[in-house]
Amino acid sequence: MKQQFVSYIRNLQNTITSRLEEVDGKATFKEDLWKRPEGGGGRTRVLEHGAVFEKGGVNISEVHGKLPETMQQYFGVKDADFFACGLSLVLHPINPMVPTVHANWRYFEMYNAEGEIVDHWFGGGQDLTPYYLFEEDAKHFHNICKSACDTHNTSFYPTYKARCDEYFYNSHRGESRGVGGLFFDYCKVSDEMSMQDWYNFVTEVGDSFLEAYVPIVEQRKSLSYTKAQKDWQEIRRGRYVEFNLVHDKGTLFGLKTNGRIESILMSLPPKVQWVYDHQPDVGSEEEKLLNVLKNPRDWVG
Amino acid sequence: MKQQFVSYIRNLQNTITSRLEEVDGKATFKEDLWKRPEGGGGRTRVLEHGAVFEKGGVNISEVHGKLPETMQQYFGVKDADFFACGLSLVLHPINPMVPTVHANWRYFEMYNAEGEIVDHWFGGGQDLTPYYLFEEDAKHFHNICKSACDTHNTSFYPTYKARCDEYFYNSHRGESRGVGGLFFDYCKVSDEMSMQDWYNFVTEVGDSFLEAYVPIVEQRKSLSYTKAQKDWQEIRRGRYVEFNLVHDKGTLFGLKTNGRIESILMSLPPKVQWVYDHQPDVGSEEEKLLNVLKNPRDWVG
Repeated sequence: MKQQFVSYIRNLQNTITSRLEEVDGKATFKEDLWKRPEGGGGRTRVLEHGAVFEKGGVNISEVHGKLPETMQQYFGVKDADFFACGLSLVLHPINPMVPTVHANWRYFEMYNAEGEIVDHWFGGGQDLTPYYLFEEDAKHFHNICKSACDTHNTSFYPTYKARCDEYFYNSHRGESRGVGGLFFDYCKVSDEMSMQDWYNFVTEVGDSFLEAYVPIVEQRKSLSYTKAQKDWQEIRRGRYVEFNLVHDKGTLFGLKTNGRIESILMSLPPKVQWVYDHQPDVGSEEEKLLNVLKNPRDWVG
Repeated sequence: MKQQFVSYIRNLQNTITSRLEEVDGKATFKEDLWKRPEGGGGRTRVLEHGAVFEKGGVNISEVHGKLPETMQQYFGVKDADFFACGLSLVLHPINPMVPTVHANWRYFEMYNAEGEIVDHWFGGGQDLTPYYLFEEDAKHFHNICKSACDTHNTSFYPTYKARCDEYFYNSHRGESRGVGGLFFDYCKVSDEMSMQDWYNFVTEVGDSFLEAYVPIVEQRKSLSYTKAQKDWQEIRRGRYVEFNLVHDKGTLFGLKTNGRIESILMSLPPKVQWVYDHQPDVGSEEEKLLNVLKNPRDWVG
């Protein structure tokens, strides 16, 4: 399973970065190979100053070794070894009419002292963060998510859509980070799902990413926008930073377990503003977005 | 003591905001009075788009009530009531040659079910975050800190200087937030210090703030700078955000205990950049700063 998923994410990284370079038309991904002193490493690909994308990263990593202390506490185990691999991506477009997107697909194995697998699971998801709300974009993104789920189990989409709303939530602001998508974790063997079934599900979601996101980019990337709309995007990017640094478990684990900082923090937007007590005008498009972030909606059905 | 310190910080807020408005010469502080539903409130003063300061906040708050759950766990107490008051300030200048400054002076009381004080202490400090290092500025700031300390106890400056370096540290980057200053906490009654002695010490530090910072601003505010130097300032401000959102106990407590979000996050800089894997040129002024942040120095003596 380990080898099967590792080669899947390697190929997927190639597929996604090639397609995004085509969409951007100007910038290309810069590749950094890195090694983790304790075992494993990664292949980080970052694009900056594109024609469509202001900044984006599509990273894979395969790490292994002793489970770090903080994660031992988290999982309630002692002296375990682990293997983890995954693909993480975040894209910050220039045009505020194009949403930011985040996706992650990962596989985790935990071993006992004899090197036997004692636990293993998949996790991941994909979610959309617009600055201006085009309802048909949110619907398109969610419809693709739902299709990828439904082949495997019709309960997956409603369950993982709800978890996504729950997870990507800035509790200190009382608002969601974006309009959601899918979030799943600890996908383990059950009566209904073998690990191969989970692999098939997770890779189907991974394969759906470009179809979920690229048509939205193509549709919105040439829309005109004002300086005030760009400012609003940069203010909202501040909320993205707040989520990632205050609440996101993946980011905090990375920062506290000697991960490669620049690969973890590639998720942070290129230019950000914090304006004191910014409030959108009543009835404005900006307020319309906030209302949806405060009251997550159903986008399909 | 409570009333004595509350009126001290009210006056100090007036003194500091008046002086900073003079220094800025263009913008004035906007005042927001707010109430905390569970008890108490604050007076937030924020300045934006000045001639010298791009953004700054000088806030006081006096809050009381049941000690929030997360703080009960932190202090290892149950069903305690508390009172806390303090002044917090952060100033983000426009010119990258002028350092950012942060200061905080606070007083805390904890009560038992009978409403008797079971514990009380002072805390606070002030610290400097330059984007370009002028050694004489760091020396000036630290000298004023040392003078304020030495009248009370000559061990205070070395102790609280070291704690400041230790506290304002981005462990995930292996670098200090800035060139430090003073940081003290849990200043309680001892054989040597009564609460009135601590009050005298803390207010002497508070009174020293303008003298520690304003001459540096006056000295540097008219220096010319390039777009690249402004970019460097905005990149370094990203590290400031990382510290405040990932490591700063005060910020995290505020966010997790229903504090007034906009007053807490006024500390975040107005415009910030995250550039992937930014490395200053060998031998540059930017690298010189980083070297000092990686190896905190003694600035007096």
